[in-house]
Amino acid sequence: MSLAHPVLEGNRLALARLLTQIENDSEEGREALNELFPHTGRAHLIGVTGAPGTGKSSLVNHLALYYRRLPRGPARQVAIVAVDPSSPFTGGAILGDRVRMRDLAGDSGVFIRSMASRGSLGGLALATTGVVQALDAAGFEIILIETVGAGQAEVDIARLAHTTLVIEAPGLGDDIQAIKAGILEIADVLVVNKADRPGVEITERALRGMLQLAHPTPHIFRNHYRDHTLGDTLSENTPATDPIIWVPPIQRTIAIEGQGIPELAKAIAKHYQHIKNTGELRRRERSRLRSELDNLLRESLVARWRATVSQEAYDQALHNLVRREISPRQAVDQLLSGGLS
Amino acid sequence: MSLAHPVLEGNRLALARLLTQIENDSEEGREALNELFPHTGRAHLIGVTGAPGTGKSSLVNHLALYYRRLPRGPARQVAIVAVDPSSPFTGGAILGDRVRMRDLAGDSGVFIRSMASRGSLGGLALATTGVVQALDAAGFEIILIETVGAGQAEVDIARLAHTTLVIEAPGLGDDIQAIKAGILEIADVLVVNKADRPGVEITERALRGMLQLAHPTPHIFRNHYRDHTLGDTLSENTPATDPIIWVPPIQRTIAIEGQGIPELAKAIAKHYQHIKNTGELRRRERSRLRSELDNLLRESLVARWRATVSQEAYDQALHNLVRREISPRQAVDQLLSGGLS
Repeated sequence: MSLAHPVLEGNRLALARLLTQIENDSEEGREALNELFPHTGRAHLIGVTGAPGTGKSSLVNHLALYYRRLPRGPARQVAIVAVDPSSPFTGGAILGDRVRMRDLAGDSGVFIRSMASRGSLGGLALATTGVVQALDAAGFEIILIETVGAGQAEVDIARLAHTTLVIEAPGLGDDIQAIKAGILEIADVLVVNKADRPGVEITERALRGMLQLAHPTPHIFRNHYRDHTLGDTLSENTPATDPIIWVPPIQRTIAIEGQGIPELAKAIAKHYQHIKNTGELRRRERSRLRSELDNLLRESLVARWRATVSQEAYDQALHNLVRREISPRQAVDQLLSGGLS
Repeated sequence: MSLAHPVLEGNRLALARLLTQIENDSEEGREALNELFPHTGRAHLIGVTGAPGTGKSSLVNHLALYYRRLPRGPARQVAIVAVDPSSPFTGGAILGDRVRMRDLAGDSGVFIRSMASRGSLGGLALATTGVVQALDAAGFEIILIETVGAGQAEVDIARLAHTTLVIEAPGLGDDIQAIKAGILEIADVLVVNKADRPGVEITERALRGMLQLAHPTPHIFRNHYRDHTLGDTLSENTPATDPIIWVPPIQRTIAIEGQGIPELAKAIAKHYQHIKNTGELRRRERSRLRSELDNLLRESLVARWRATVSQEAYDQALHNLVRREISPRQAVDQLLSGGLS
């Protein structure tokens, strides 16, 4: 019996079990996801990424607390998905559910799930996609997707999220700059966390400089000009917010003290509204689903082909390859012609 | 006309052109790799990985210089492949060929190639594999494969290399520790670079502690005991080097001054000898080729299937998916049954 129904009814135990089924890519998990899929598309997916040492986990923690204790309006249902692609071996949740639990324990409006890679990055991305869909269908309005590391994983997360936060902190190593150049292009909101540390101005200035490189439109320079030199005097003649182009704002926070969190939440909400208004949300949804479709297709094609070729044929090709009698490409050609004959 | 022949004859211009063909996955590049493959398997592939700020590039630079100016014996032909998976957008070589060139310029025994991701991590891994094979066939005896970032990319690089160096440096952020847990397991040699910085003992102690967790054999503790408490007095009764188990040594370096580089090169050579003696080299080669075979198979299966299905059928499935009328899994089932009928 599928877990889809109890999950839709808000049963948290059923949800936890379903997420395990999804992580294991079981048949039950697949069927439940089929049933749940029409109920998805309501959550705001927020990606949180940044280099080690920037305090991502604290920030996610305090954002979740904020959404649970909104100064006005009802609390939001919040899910946290902590993805750790750098941990392919331990299989455990390094990000530490227990650490978070001190603040969020006992609150049934918060659901936390840690995921570690099990071999392939592609497998992790697919599993994360499924987990987020299940949480979305289960009624979580805010889903925070946190990832450790710097690289392709962040880009994949950005494809999954509606709003991507890139976290920085003052005083981290030399070639952080180099990494940022790529990561910056996926940022919808930039956060300088640990803003009480020395060097916060340098970090912020570096980010502004990179933003100008990444978005070299007159609009940006206008905005910068206004912000830093003339106050709001220019805003009467030049619209403060271009209706099409989103310029990632830079928010300072001291997450462990909760400072800057309400302002950050406001910037996140503003971005969500922006992508709704401009049609960007629909575009992102489409591109996200397309990439999921392609990933699933790839995985299914390999599984189907595997069923058509004998282990002996595969082993023989590998044997010839290891002896360098054929090249990898020639081994593939051999196997693919054999597999279909 | 294939570039394989001039590449085998040592033509560097032909090599550079071939590497571009391989990166573009062109038909010429594929054919040349088929021809070159029987000539591979002679180079020592050394992976170099570590978090931003550890000084990887300087270290690679000075290792290359060392191999070019060996105190005894002829200079080795050295290639450097700098892989930057965190830079999927710029498409450029952030790692800075020009910076290296100051020291290595004009030396035809050194060949440097930077590679940035072009979309998918899988594509980058395949291209890197091909580039390394071409360099191997071209006669480079030492191939240094450097990667930026922390995550799955490192693991993939480790699969490619015979000897993997993991670089650390004192005083980098808080949760570096968490990342190391996964990365450590791919390390053959650990390097604490910037060893003149404060905190070097703390970093080294942390690494030793993690090594004990990762390799909890009596052998290790014996080694540690000997190294730190009793000097060499124990070594008469307990063999210093277990013939089967390799314990990653920890080497201190100050790369920008060249300090510790000869000792590091010695540890690298020792590891290479160890994996040759124990059969581990053959095992790694096999597992590497197997993983390349699987990657190529996956890519080829997708390409073949794409040719059998109409763009209309694909677009229709995506359309239904975006309207949430079918789930991603159902879209795949639809496309796969249609594609073969």
